[in-house]
Amino acid sequence: MSEKGWSQLWLDYASKAGKDSVNGIRMGNVNVDIKDFDVDNRVIESAVKELNRAFCGDNDKVKVTLVRNKEVAKEGYRIGNIIGGSNENVAKSDAPEYVIEASDENGALYGVFHLIREKLMGKEYPNICADCAPSNPLRMMNHWDNMDGSIERGYSGRSFFFVGDEIVVNERTVDYARFMASVGINGVVINNVNVKWAATDLITTRFFDKVKELSDIFGDYGIKLYLSLNFASPIELGGLPICDPLDKDVINWWKDKIKEVYDHLPDLGGFLVKADSEGRPGPFTYGRTQADGANMLGDIIAQYGGIIIWRCFVYNCTQDWRDTKTDRARAGYDYFKGLDGEYHDNVILQIKNGPMDFQIREPISPLLGGLTKTNQMLEVQIAQEYTGHQIDVCYLIPMFKEILGFKTYCRDDLDTVADVISGRTMGNKYAGMAAVINTGNDYNWTGNDLAAANLYGFGRLAFNTELSSEEIAREWVRLTFDLEQDLEDKLVDMLLRSREIYEKYTSPLGIGWMVTPSDHYGPSVDGYEYSRWGTYHRADHLGLGVDRTDKGTGYAQQYYSPNAEMYNDPKTCPENLLLFFHHIPYTWKLASGQSLIQYIYDSHFEGCAEAEELAETWKEFEGKVSDRTYACVSERFGRQVYNAREWRDQVNSYFYRKSGISDEKGRTIY
Amino acid sequence: MSEKGWSQLWLDYASKAGKDSVNGIRMGNVNVDIKDFDVDNRVIESAVKELNRAFCGDNDKVKVTLVRNKEVAKEGYRIGNIIGGSNENVAKSDAPEYVIEASDENGALYGVFHLIREKLMGKEYPNICADCAPSNPLRMMNHWDNMDGSIERGYSGRSFFFVGDEIVVNERTVDYARFMASVGINGVVINNVNVKWAATDLITTRFFDKVKELSDIFGDYGIKLYLSLNFASPIELGGLPICDPLDKDVINWWKDKIKEVYDHLPDLGGFLVKADSEGRPGPFTYGRTQADGANMLGDIIAQYGGIIIWRCFVYNCTQDWRDTKTDRARAGYDYFKGLDGEYHDNVILQIKNGPMDFQIREPISPLLGGLTKTNQMLEVQIAQEYTGHQIDVCYLIPMFKEILGFKTYCRDDLDTVADVISGRTMGNKYAGMAAVINTGNDYNWTGNDLAAANLYGFGRLAFNTELSSEEIAREWVRLTFDLEQDLEDKLVDMLLRSREIYEKYTSPLGIGWMVTPSDHYGPSVDGYEYSRWGTYHRADHLGLGVDRTDKGTGYAQQYYSPNAEMYNDPKTCPENLLLFFHHIPYTWKLASGQSLIQYIYDSHFEGCAEAEELAETWKEFEGKVSDRTYACVSERFGRQVYNAREWRDQVNSYFYRKSGISDEKGRTIY
Repeated sequence: MSEKGWSQLWLDYASKAGKDSVNGIRMGNVNVDIKDFDVDNRVIESAVKELNRAFCGDNDKVKVTLVRNKEVAKEGYRIGNIIGGSNENVAKSDAPEYVIEASDENGALYGVFHLIREKLMGKEYPNICADCAPSNPLRMMNHWDNMDGSIERGYSGRSFFFVGDEIVVNERTVDYARFMASVGINGVVINNVNVKWAATDLITTRFFDKVKELSDIFGDYGIKLYLSLNFASPIELGGLPICDPLDKDVINWWKDKIKEVYDHLPDLGGFLVKADSEGRPGPFTYGRTQADGANMLGDIIAQYGGIIIWRCFVYNCTQDWRDTKTDRARAGYDYFKGLDGEYHDNVILQIKNGPMDFQIREPISPLLGGLTKTNQMLEVQIAQEYTGHQIDVCYLIPMFKEILGFKTYCRDDLDTVADVISGRTMGNKYAGMAAVINTGNDYNWTGNDLAAANLYGFGRLAFNTELSSEEIAREWVRLTFDLEQDLEDKLVDMLLRSREIYEKYTSPLGIGWMVTPSDHYGPSVDGYEYSRWGTYHRADHLGLGVDRTDKGTGYAQQYYSPNAEMYNDPKTCPENLLLFFHHIPYTWKLASGQSLIQYIYDSHFEGCAEAEELAETWKEFEGKVSDRTYACVSERFGRQVYNAREWRDQVNSYFYRKSGISDEKGRTIY
Repeated sequence: MSEKGWSQLWLDYASKAGKDSVNGIRMGNVNVDIKDFDVDNRVIESAVKELNRAFCGDNDKVKVTLVRNKEVAKEGYRIGNIIGGSNENVAKSDAPEYVIEASDENGALYGVFHLIREKLMGKEYPNICADCAPSNPLRMMNHWDNMDGSIERGYSGRSFFFVGDEIVVNERTVDYARFMASVGINGVVINNVNVKWAATDLITTRFFDKVKELSDIFGDYGIKLYLSLNFASPIELGGLPICDPLDKDVINWWKDKIKEVYDHLPDLGGFLVKADSEGRPGPFTYGRTQADGANMLGDIIAQYGGIIIWRCFVYNCTQDWRDTKTDRARAGYDYFKGLDGEYHDNVILQIKNGPMDFQIREPISPLLGGLTKTNQMLEVQIAQEYTGHQIDVCYLIPMFKEILGFKTYCRDDLDTVADVISGRTMGNKYAGMAAVINTGNDYNWTGNDLAAANLYGFGRLAFNTELSSEEIAREWVRLTFDLEQDLEDKLVDMLLRSREIYEKYTSPLGIGWMVTPSDHYGPSVDGYEYSRWGTYHRADHLGLGVDRTDKGTGYAQQYYSPNAEMYNDPKTCPENLLLFFHHIPYTWKLASGQSLIQYIYDSHFEGCAEAEELAETWKEFEGKVSDRTYACVSERFGRQVYNAREWRDQVNSYFYRKSGISDEKGRTIY
């Protein structure tokens, strides 16, 4: 257990080396040679320091050569080992020797972390060869931390960036940067996209010094700091009467402000903006387009090398539930598709993976690839807002893999989401992936120790979208724990099954939203049914689901052919999205031969039983992981099982009471 | 408009006298003669002062003689007029002359306020004869004000007693005491029954001085101050490990504490205690009974003349919704009936009007009269927690009249709730009525100006339970406004209809609880259906309602015969409580010939249409009431109409979607 008050996650060198203290740096184990890099460069310094921390065991001698090689891809690296490996001819006393080639400092640092990862996993070490280039140019974490220390949708304690409207910079900040860099993250937005109160002042002299401190720490690990921006800053900070993006005074105010910001924060990556959404101000107020708003800021920030990341989460959040024509799922495409090609080069649209809001199952947003002339970035959420609040285990990488692998049909080849958001499809420079992060100041960073698999996994996947869910899970398990093979396999299996289990006991077949309003944990089948949020299941005594076909809201037509046709027909629509696209009678026969209502019953009984199995399996880990981890995860499994039972019984009772159709298997429904 | 920042409610002397300033005291108008009362007594002084304030107009000359007469009932008064009246022989220049007889100072004060009321109503004045005695010995207001200034279930701004954990005493406090005394209130609990944080300290030196100031102001108007008590005070303040009411150290701690309290607050009326309820500490923790807890405190406080008011709102608030045997409605009777006769003489049980929690329609609590050897007090709620948040107009006096008139059959005569809680049934000394008050620091005290009718009405009704709802409404309208007869009639009519209208558009036939959880405003039909609060409607595709008969939870059997039999049979059960006592099919024929489902549709369409009518009628009051009042009430009517439509459409859609039965009249259901 770390003495620091926070764990070392997957970089627990001391524990892996079998030592008591953490980060005890044993000098002399590591011999680093640096060629064509500036030895005083801060990222190179961090890389060297990290090698020294990692190779801290008594038998951890190693020689590493860092070489600049312009042929290596941007932020990529190559590793070869010269001496060592499984070659038995090498004397045991010889330190293994590696060459890490990279064209830039970040690449060198990532190469070092690759080497450390292999060492910590203890398999095949020291026989390492690698040739890696990041799949995505931008690999970002979005913190929804508020300056009062609260975290919107945070399930792991309070913010470690902000306390009482002040910025905190300490040793934990450095560890945070190390962990992020170790999985290839190169951008972090430190504050909530809903920019309110003191957070508006982050771009003022009140906070410049502290933001600079943070930015410098990030910079040491190759990470750019970004800020979420209040679009109404000209009003709130500048005292102007409006924030119309085409108004000269507004533009001039921004010019001065952004100059001032870059005078103080020369390394700033840019700004993230949530405009015209859920009550946030934006260009719509002045009859301007989203492009007007984004381009104005983009043009000003361009000279400083900054970018504007503009969120596409724009929809009418005061819908009348009686209105079956308006469809929130359509909103992103309807608002943004028409402006395709109008966004300037340093503006990038950040698009949530689905058209709704991070449900356990949604179709892929039709904006991804729907836009063909616009920089775009995929936004996912590892904060488990709708997926169990880091109480329930829900390893999300399989979901992200599905998203990345989705064929958009935006062109004949290179048309998957992974292609589009990496820049491969359009050959654009600004592209990538962002995750709403799941961290807080809990000892273990992520509330549930097992939720760290998503933190680790997102970074790894953003860096290399070709990795499989299992590879990532296995890496994380090996790095984090020290388990025998059978338990390692079990834990990997638990993670891999967890998303499907969560899906089974919650809302069926892509309909989503049957959660407790506001809080978003636990069931409330009608909780959002009569609300203003555009989130309805339309269940009646005959069936449920939303007709989003060409006879309904027309949402399915936002996809390219043949996806549009596939979704439009309930017979070809993937069954796990059936209720997202169609209003289906309870008696509808699924491919399995089950009726829809029987599927609802069966999947909920199964999902709950499987959650109980997970909890039961976890008991085998007692004494095999730290007592703290065991207790923390056990406590959460207890709550997950309770939650799964509530979901099972409430969903089943709701549909039984509504349909009047009994469970074929005669199980208890209330 | 008052310059003070708060209105003068029904005592707006200046406005009634046609003057600009408020409370301008014109000396010399009033000639007061005092016989057998101490002229320096503070209550008598207040009475004289009030006469001088009230008779402030140019033609308001009056002569009043206050006479002590021991034959008049406690706190009662008699008024006769000697000169004046409609006798035309009396010269116009002669001041009218009244004699007010009372046996105590409170009676004299109430007589004065009676005289003032008649003067302000301007009808029949100055021909006044009265012989009044209060129906109930205790007539109390319960504030749910927290010391941070928030008010639990407050809809009229913040507390005027507490700001930032400090007690506020100012001119508004004096006006508050005047208004309460003017309607006969003689006891006020200043702090929330959920006693937390700083409020626990109200019985410590930290607050004694300020509480004493408040108590003195109240005392000037014949009002005793009471405090809500934290049963865990021995732990939280005393540092004891327990608060077991039978533990010697705990008892000694309370002895010392209560002595200390009365040393500082000699006029304190006593304590109100919410124990073992909704997470509050209590005797159950130590395996003791509610009587053990209450009697321990009662015995200690007796020597100071204090009383212990013990709330009966005890139930299991962590019920499993799947459990259809447990019935929250039963809880009060189950917990308290067995202890009947065990409570000491200065302990009084405070019983909510219904077995659940202040719903728009509930049966009468079977504890009222169910207890025959225990002091008991009726608790109602004029804070409109479930009845429209002082946004929707809901004049509650008709509900209270029904409650008071309910025949409990606890004996052959004198068996109504009014008899029981007045002390007439048992001949006991401590009895009465308490209301959870609806005030806050809004200008108009009650959020909606029209909600003041409940504030006024509760006091008047507690003083005289024989007054009709219409009499009280008319008094309040005349005192508050200055309307021509037709508008007066319209406003009285609006008030009298308002409760039924609210009931129609919200939850049907006594089932209750279809409200937004926590907030309790607006519909959420399933909001409490799968919760832990014991609040279910059990609707399925065939019908709804809770079986509380002898075949169900047995709740109906808690009543005396013939009420028990009446409620037990759906054919004799009052239809407005049908779903409270029975699970009824949608096709059930009501007395009107309507099916249950058709009744649900019809009543919701009607209720909503009638709410719209109320709002429409209010438009006639423009220019007839102050602009401030008109705007305030208009704004709230707008929200009421919106609310009523949401209720109508959500309830109707919910039951249509569940039952599949169409509206016979083909109206729009979603």
